[in-house]
Amino acid sequence: MSGLRCAVFGASGGIGAALVDALSDRKDVEEVYALMRSPGRKGEKATPLAFDYGDEGSIIAAVERMTGDGPLDLVIVATGLLSRGDEIQPEKTWRSLDAEAMAENFRINTIGPALIGKHVLDHLSREGRPLFAALSARVGSIEDNGLGGWHSYRAAKAALNQIIRNFAIELRRRNKRAVAVALHPGTVETTLSEPFRGNVPDEKLFTPEYAAACLLSVIDGLSAGDSGGFFAWDGKPIPF
Amino acid sequence: MSGLRCAVFGASGGIGAALVDALSDRKDVEEVYALMRSPGRKGEKATPLAFDYGDEGSIIAAVERMTGDGPLDLVIVATGLLSRGDEIQPEKTWRSLDAEAMAENFRINTIGPALIGKHVLDHLSREGRPLFAALSARVGSIEDNGLGGWHSYRAAKAALNQIIRNFAIELRRRNKRAVAVALHPGTVETTLSEPFRGNVPDEKLFTPEYAAACLLSVIDGLSAGDSGGFFAWDGKPIPF
Repeated sequence: MSGLRCAVFGASGGIGAALVDALSDRKDVEEVYALMRSPGRKGEKATPLAFDYGDEGSIIAAVERMTGDGPLDLVIVATGLLSRGDEIQPEKTWRSLDAEAMAENFRINTIGPALIGKHVLDHLSREGRPLFAALSARVGSIEDNGLGGWHSYRAAKAALNQIIRNFAIELRRRNKRAVAVALHPGTVETTLSEPFRGNVPDEKLFTPEYAAACLLSVIDGLSAGDSGGFFAWDGKPIPF
Repeated sequence: MSGLRCAVFGASGGIGAALVDALSDRKDVEEVYALMRSPGRKGEKATPLAFDYGDEGSIIAAVERMTGDGPLDLVIVATGLLSRGDEIQPEKTWRSLDAEAMAENFRINTIGPALIGKHVLDHLSREGRPLFAALSARVGSIEDNGLGGWHSYRAAKAALNQIIRNFAIELRRRNKRAVAVALHPGTVETTLSEPFRGNVPDEKLFTPEYAAACLLSVIDGLSAGDSGGFFAWDGKPIPF
């Protein structure tokens, strides 16, 4: 039996890069496509490929390239936007809401992952337990939202959770073995979280390597009945 | 004691117009601002005002005009987009996802209502039980999503629910009396639902007048503890 064929979108980010490394280290993995805007060099198993949310054709081309050699067993979308210079900052109050910053949040955190699903879901394997996972965030939970703030990011991740739920429902019709889930990686030492983790105690701040190991452990434990769910790094379900 | 001062954004839509009429008929209501892109004529109590989501300045100007006479007791956002000609149609499969159509869904169904909140929430009354409500939709519930499809609309309404939740949390700090909720009006005979209600049985298809009466009855029954919730036309809570 041949090994697993995996793709990580957003492979230059902290968690994405750690996922590529962790997958490359696994004996049951044959190939890891590492998708990013500016692809780095090839690893032993990792093949860097370019894609950009601003160019849907780049997603189509990357999926064609990857699936020319066979279907995919595991697709993880590890892209995400929380802040960008002064232009985009998580809001502390409704007074800071900005139409363009909100639109950019939806473009990166929701629409981009949706476009990946559009092109890749038809190419998930029909053997084993193929899986499509997107990194969401606990703050995307509406039910669990007790603190407020971060309007655009929270709303875009809630919207992403809804898209994943739809993917799971359609997969039940098209590819019964396949699973689609939203995952919360915890608070991880990455450039995304860096400006905003002042209050996070050390024991709750994960290295990208630890987060990637936790996420892959959660993924390993998922079965068809978990499809459409939202799970934290420790495998616990998060309400929507 | 003076009567309630109300604002309905999206007052030219089926439900919005019915809300303006129903509020105008109430003895406890003093003023109803009817906000729409192309304002109609003045009613006995209803004052038409222009606003357009494409022009944030128009929202600012409308809020200044309304609140120059005093704070608002009730603000209902009744705008919404489900389809537009051939350009925007609710998706039946991931294969139909389109970045621009998704972005337009978020612009109208999430960002627009968020901008209204940005400008109007500071002007809610500090007496009685001021309320900000936005028309969401049951299909915006992620938990309740068993059918799939309508990706963009579902995702944008889930995102709207998250924004409303954030508004409720911030209102608890800034104006303890005020309530913010998301409402599901049922399936209503409007131009929004018209192309998509073939399977809705007659007894579940509401006239705009009936939907407006139900929604105002729900609103009348809400208390501070309900803030941040998502309620159907019959007052029952909907999970996120």
